[in-house]
Amino acid sequence: MADLPLPPGSTLGILGGGQLGRMLSQAASRLGFNVVILDPEENSPAGRVSQGQVIAAYDDPTALQVLGRVAQAVTFEFENVPAASVQTLVESGAEVAPGARALAVAQDRVDEKTFLNSVGATTVDFAAVDSVDDLVAGLERLGVPALLKTRREGYDGKGQVWVRAVSEAADAWNAIDGKPAVLEAKAAFTRELSVIAARGRDGQVAVYPLGENIHEGGVLRTTLAPAKVDRKTDARAREIAAAILNGLDYVGVLGVELFDLGKGVLLVNEIAPRVHNTGHWTQDGCVCDQFEQHIRAVAGWPLGPTEPHARVEMTNLLGDEVDQWTALAAEPDARLHLYGKAEARPGRKMAHVNRVSKL
Amino acid sequence: MADLPLPPGSTLGILGGGQLGRMLSQAASRLGFNVVILDPEENSPAGRVSQGQVIAAYDDPTALQVLGRVAQAVTFEFENVPAASVQTLVESGAEVAPGARALAVAQDRVDEKTFLNSVGATTVDFAAVDSVDDLVAGLERLGVPALLKTRREGYDGKGQVWVRAVSEAADAWNAIDGKPAVLEAKAAFTRELSVIAARGRDGQVAVYPLGENIHEGGVLRTTLAPAKVDRKTDARAREIAAAILNGLDYVGVLGVELFDLGKGVLLVNEIAPRVHNTGHWTQDGCVCDQFEQHIRAVAGWPLGPTEPHARVEMTNLLGDEVDQWTALAAEPDARLHLYGKAEARPGRKMAHVNRVSKL
Repeated sequence: MADLPLPPGSTLGILGGGQLGRMLSQAASRLGFNVVILDPEENSPAGRVSQGQVIAAYDDPTALQVLGRVAQAVTFEFENVPAASVQTLVESGAEVAPGARALAVAQDRVDEKTFLNSVGATTVDFAAVDSVDDLVAGLERLGVPALLKTRREGYDGKGQVWVRAVSEAADAWNAIDGKPAVLEAKAAFTRELSVIAARGRDGQVAVYPLGENIHEGGVLRTTLAPAKVDRKTDARAREIAAAILNGLDYVGVLGVELFDLGKGVLLVNEIAPRVHNTGHWTQDGCVCDQFEQHIRAVAGWPLGPTEPHARVEMTNLLGDEVDQWTALAAEPDARLHLYGKAEARPGRKMAHVNRVSKL
Repeated sequence: MADLPLPPGSTLGILGGGQLGRMLSQAASRLGFNVVILDPEENSPAGRVSQGQVIAAYDDPTALQVLGRVAQAVTFEFENVPAASVQTLVESGAEVAPGARALAVAQDRVDEKTFLNSVGATTVDFAAVDSVDDLVAGLERLGVPALLKTRREGYDGKGQVWVRAVSEAADAWNAIDGKPAVLEAKAAFTRELSVIAARGRDGQVAVYPLGENIHEGGVLRTTLAPAKVDRKTDARAREIAAAILNGLDYVGVLGVELFDLGKGVLLVNEIAPRVHNTGHWTQDGCVCDQFEQHIRAVAGWPLGPTEPHARVEMTNLLGDEVDQWTALAAEPDARLHLYGKAEARPGRKMAHVNRVSKL
């Protein structure tokens, strides 16, 4: 294994060549690292700003061996990394962060909720569902409406369906193709918050101010940060973040989506063991953004500061909304971040804009 | 020629693969551009964070034609671009900025000073020197000590010599290999300032706050910004910057080094038609740094804001000073920018650190 902290001039590997990999690569370059991307798509957004790209599937053993040998540390832009891929990388000599446990927990919604509650990061009530009978029993216990989600995969509202009556159980089960699932009680929340936090290899924890998130059609539209929260809520969010990071012996940046029930009561919706869309505001609101923070943690460097120097409204530009760049380029307080994606398919995350104002 | 403003997804070419090209490339990527570098050194610092690199000399006609065809706009990280290279790029279909006139003026210290004084950007007294006789006459007119510099090339204190007596004329002339030169009177300045300014394709001018610079052995060590200056000095610096930019019909970012004589009197030392080492502080002091600003101008976008949100002390790390990264990584307010250069030769610019504090 490599000696830590990794010196500048070392090579970092990133699985995934999308916008998160791209922004991670840019942050790593700023710290003097060379970056190699693994992504099946030729000329990926991240590959185009990196020293090299291995063009192969994420579970291609040869590609993973090459990456593990050329890179002293490897990280990911997504959580659905096969456990066998991590194993191959580790055997090839690379430090891998976050580790196998964090990935395994984040890949299975039942395991995730079980873990979260075990460390005091309370979630909504839930039930594991492996059959229509399980679903009916779950609906009777949790009440309706309730949200049925596949245990694995699925993101941005995909692979999930609201069940509004016990009589809809069979239809709902079919809608998710009868896959192993979790049923979640509906939370009576007033708003959605998120907290972006990091943990270094030495156990140091750093937490950014909370963001308030607005979703549209299951996809994040806007994050306002720092969110206006009372002290109790802020303290509780920090406590939750630290409990999760320490509970997973985590290394890197983690995103935690929260339901705000008011009076300092927060429920964890889900976690993402990676840099997170709701943390993009840090690029223009903090001197050390979530991307540099993640690279610092992965490379065994001390974590950077998380204090904000500006208020930021982050808005995702989806599909052809990216054509708004002409107007946005002329807005003095709008900082544009474009991902270099060639095809603006409907709903595809193409860019984001950080609108900056005084704290 | 390309239609302006250039949309994201366009390709920008950069001549020069060093740290300035690297930071320009990173800024261009953030705005969704693809970047191709031209540099004779394989795997250059800029090439490693760009989509591609043409490995060839800066005056290689075929390489320039390739770059001019693949890139919709081309810019430079240094001023000593051969005029013929610019011509080839333009003929190949690329927008080139800054233009031939700005480069020509900046490449010849006599032409530069003549131009500067013609637009009211006063310099020290000077004399063109083409022989020992010219030098003796110059010394008699300007007094001693005076600074003899080659008209062309030379940077960071190279290609120049102080002449302390008329009797030293022949030795001084030999010291610069008898090249066409300029003799400069010594300025009675109290400190060195610089102003980084930009001009868009529509003639819009944007000026960053002044920096105060400390040189060591002819090489920049530190820039403090925003510099503490009175209103008169600030206004005069802005006036000088605008006069130069407009006088050259300039497009892009320009660095202007100034001698502060006090009481609002400033003399221009020299100009650099590019992003400038004394502007690196903007990366952590302004939401739109000099690199994004230059790309905006080159691509025909509106210029970004130049107000500072922090005070910054920028320090260059030369040669093996880059080994200080371990200590610097642990300094919470130190933002590190490493250039990814493999070999830490003595005096080589390897990285800089921006120490950030409240305004």
